Order: sequence, then C-alpha cells, then structure tokens
Amino acid sequence: MPTYKLTIEYDGTPYHGWQAHEDIVSIQGTLRDALRISLRKDVALQGASRTDAGVHAVGQVASLKLDEPVDEHRLARSLSALCKPHIAVTRVERVDDEFNARFSARGKHYVYRVLNRSAPSPLMQHICWHVAAPLDLSRMRQAAATLVGTHDFNAFRASDCQRDNTERTVTAVDVVENRPIVEIHVQGTAFLKNMVRIIAGTLVDIARGAIPPDTAERMLETGDRTIGGRTAPACGLTLVEVFFDGTKLSASPRKG
Amino acid sequence: MPTYKLTIEYDGTPYHGWQAHEDIVSIQGTLRDALRISLRKDVALQGASRTDAGVHAVGQVASLKLDEPVDEHRLARSLSALCKPHIAVTRVERVDDEFNARFSARGKHYVYRVLNRSAPSPLMQHICWHVAAPLDLSRMRQAAATLVGTHDFNAFRASDCQRDNTERTVTAVDVVENRPIVEIHVQGTAFLKNMVRIIAGTLVDIARGAIPPDTAERMLETGDRTIGGRTAPACGLTLVEVFFDGTKLSASPRKG
Repeated sequence: MPTYKLTIEYDGTPYHGWQAHEDIVSIQGTLRDALRISLRKDVALQGASRTDAGVHAVGQVASLKLDEPVDEHRLARSLSALCKPHIAVTRVERVDDEFNARFSARGKHYVYRVLNRSAPSPLMQHICWHVAAPLDLSRMRQAAATLVGTHDFNAFRASDCQRDNTERTVTAVDVVENRPIVEIHVQGTAFLKNMVRIIAGTLVDIARGAIPPDTAERMLETGDRTIGGRTAPACGLTLVEVFFDGTKLSASPRKG
Repeated sequence: MPTYKLTIEYDGTPYHGWQAHEDIVSIQGTLRDALRISLRKDVALQGASRTDAGVHAVGQVASLKLDEPVDEHRLARSLSALCKPHIAVTRVERVDDEFNARFSARGKHYVYRVLNRSAPSPLMQHICWHVAAPLDLSRMRQAAATLVGTHDFNAFRASDCQRDNTERTVTAVDVVENRPIVEIHVQGTAFLKNMVRIIAGTLVDIARGAIPPDTAERMLETGDRTIGGRTAPACGLTLVEVFFDGTKLSASPRKG
C-alpha cells in the first residue's frame, strides 16, 4: 500500500496534545478529520512523538497508508487549509511501505526555550517559559553535560509514566544563547513522558541557584524525582525534528 | 522635570497602530491608559516611530516627563502588567531632560520577515508575510544595494503621505537567510510612511521575477510609485531598534 510521511508544524497552545482521545481536541484528531474530508475515507495516522498538551512542533512526523497514490503537494495544501491556523503540513513524501513514523524513528531533537529577562515578550510568549531570575549558564552547561550518555532516567519522568524500562540514550544537551531567549536543545534516541520538560526545569533551577549544581547527576544516580527541579511548562517545548535511518542524530545544536 | 525613556515590545496585530486617536485601539492610547492607572495622572507619551496598524516592535522607544522621580523597575512591571498580553515595557530609564523619543532619534532599524515556503507557519505567521513562490535572493540583494545612500524616496511612500521633503538616507538594506524565513533588515536615519513595506514588497516582487530587477533603481530615478512592487503587508514588519546619540547606526545586519 502506498505509504506517506507527513512533516507537521503546530502551535500546540489550543490542543490537548498530539494523541486523539474522545471528547478532547487533539492534533492527531484534527488531522484525521481533515484526512477524512480530503480523501473521503477514514485513514489511520501514526505519529512519531506523542507531544503533551500545549507542546509545539516544527518537525513532527506522521505516517499513513492509502489504497492508491495521491498528489503529495495537493494533499499537503489541502490538509494545511483544513487545519489552519494552528496546524500546517509542511511536507508530504511517499516513502517505503515499511515506514512507520513511530517505529522507524531513531531519535528526536527538542528545543526548550526560556525567555530570560524581567519583562514578558508579547511576540514570543507562546513558545517560551518566562523566567525573570538571572541564569548562570556555565553552571547550566556543566549540569547538561552530565546528562549526555546512556543512563537510567527514572528520575526524569512523569509520575504516571507507564514504561518498565527507563534506560534512555541522550546524545546532546546544548545550551544556546539567543538573548533574551536561552535555548536548551536536547537530542536522544527516545524519551520518557515529560523527560525533556524535567531536564529543562532542573537545568533552570540549577542555573538560578534554587537547587545544588550536582542535582542532575544525583538524580541519575539515585533515580529520585523529588530532588529535581520543577517540570518546566509545556509552552516552552518544541519538537524540532525526528530522525530516521539516513538522517543524522548529531551532537551539534540546531536552530529550532 | 524627570524624564524617562521607555523601551517597548508589542504584537501589533490587535491594534490600529502606535498613534492614539479617538475611537480606535492604539498602542500609545493603551500605554497612556496604563500610565493613568499606575501614576494616577495624565501623562503625555511621545513615541519614536508611528508604526502602522498591525506592525510589531521589539524596540519601540517612547519618552515622558513626570513631576517627580519614580522607581524605574516598578513602573516597567506595572505597565507590562496593565498592558499584557500584547504590549510589554521591557525597560524604563531616567534620561537627560532634553530627551524626546521622536526628536532625539537619529535612526531606526526595521526587519521585514518573509516566510518563503509553500506551507504556512502556525508558530510564526503573526510576524511574517507568507510568500510561497521561490525567491532569487542574489537578485534581491543586488536591488537592495541600490537603495543604500541618500536618495529621493518619493516612489517609496504611501499615497497619503504628507511630507514635503522626500529625501531620506538609508544606511543598510541587508537580506539575511534564516530558512524558512528571509529577513530584510533596513536601517536609516528616517523613513516616509509605508517606506519599509514598499521596499520589502518591491524586493520580493523583484526576487520572484514579477517585476524587472532594476525596478528599485528606476523608482529612485523616476519617483514613480506605480512601477514598484506591492506594499508588503503590515504583519511582516517589526521595529527592531531606535538609535540615539551614542548608539550605533551600523551597516551590519542584526537579529530582530
């Protein structure tokens, strides 16, 4: 069956996350409704990342299978028109029939944006967490470096996270200054529920001196969530890119 | 009298521009109402740039005079709280009594952002003009270079612009690729009504081949507005910075 890869940008603010459920407005559900209108049939849509309520994406990836080929550009335009203004399908590509956005994914790149000044930002508030306190970025970078590698990230997951195996590989945690924004770029092979937001919240709390500089390291050693920083708010998080075989999972920071 | 310089960021989308008039919602009027609440008196507020309806700013500057000194940080916080979410006062500084945001200004830096891809952008649509057609940026840069210098910009102003003298000095027009965004940075000593938007619209129309590459040059020579490109929409324009004595009016591009 013809298989398609969709690349999707969204402002997650008005949605209860990626995953469709009854009685909530989700990104997956909104796209499924648009596919039903555009293709006149029900189509299953598999997403690479189940982003939380309020989390954004510029490079979410979803896959779907159709009975017959379609015009990629026309489908992208049609879905963007039906889902505007908060969701856009930036690309549709026909891919190998084995492709599945969730199971073929080899890694992901997220950026967490912190607006670091006393005043709020009318133009950027929808994609940032506003932290007025001064941040010691060298302390933040030292803590970030301890997270890189394969570790048990039990202390970096939501209390209702269901996974049995909590070992994950983080390939990069880069802190990029783009004043007044501080960007925390996190790349890894896979993530636990709320993992990037707990990393961001812990790094910010370390950088403002609210918790000791070695907290991230101690969380990895002890598995204890309670010694960490807060779970940073969803609005600051954006899924930048999903990596598949042939795309690079790199250690260098990328602009979101 | 104690004189203060305010630096202001705003999302211009919901406002009919900077300038206060009766029966419209303006940025100046909204700030004046907030000053009345915060200081319990009417205060005149002079802005450096009378931005059009829908135009944004990260570095608008306004000045005001008070009977007695105030706490700068407290005033900034109070005004931001009263004007949120679309206006924030990012800085308040006490300045020389001679300072006047409009008459002391020596130059301004604007950025015009073009989203250049087929799909719209849910996260950036409020600050961009969406142009799907491919843009030839080398052609755009060549045309941009002809605008730098002191010229009669009669062909680059709105039909209802009232100024007698249409000679202006543009110190830089830089095209910066930040894909999918193309940024047109324009710096100059002063600008006519709609001048930056007509520059942006003309450069975009040149870059997509809708008008001849030498159009900007011919507009300067002939003063003829009708041969130029469209007036680019307000949503793509942001006032980045206002220059005063002691701040640099440079030829290098700056991030907006």
